[in-house]
Amino acid sequence: MPPDNVVFIGKKPTMNYVLAVVTQFNSGNQSVSIKARGKAIVRAVDVALITQRRFLQNAVIEDIKISTEEVAIGEDEHTNVSSMEIVMTIPE
Amino acid sequence: MPPDNVVFIGKKPTMNYVLAVVTQFNSGNQSVSIKARGKAIVRAVDVALITQRRFLQNAVIEDIKISTEEVAIGEDEHTNVSSMEIVMTIPE
Repeated sequence: MPPDNVVFIGKKPTMNYVLAVVTQFNSGNQSVSIKARGKAIVRAVDVALITQRRFLQNAVIEDIKISTEEVAIGEDEHTNVSSMEIVMTIPE
Repeated sequence: MPPDNVVFIGKKPTMNYVLAVVTQFNSGNQSVSIKARGKAIVRAVDVALITQRRFLQNAVIEDIKISTEEVAIGEDEHTNVSSMEIVMTIPE
């Protein structure tokens, strides 16, 4: 299981993930990581911005990292996929 | 016209934009901004990472900014769209 303060973005509606981020902040986390790969990267950006605009105006986007991950697509084959991590925090 | 050191990501193949970024560095720019909105954000991330991995290993991703932009979709209507700017530099 991923640690509590990580939200992985998949194919569900954007608001599901916004709710997950808000919930983690409300349960006491001071920092939440939003992670996504490939096409889900756009949704990760939406989630961070919607969380900040509509729910937690005091949250700041502390860091955005991008990297390339290798993903197996068969026995001996792999492809590269971009991944992103957005770290949001609520300053004390 | 946008300033020389900005590459706007649209719907062309990813490698077109990689070439644009590499060209701007090769023409003497020390810093290049990659900008995208909406679904093109994924491609912007790909462009930055491919530029770094395959062409300019000494380039660093100096900053990534995300924000929300209002886009008119009709006479009096608008919608919000996420945008991203990736700043790449080659340290001296």
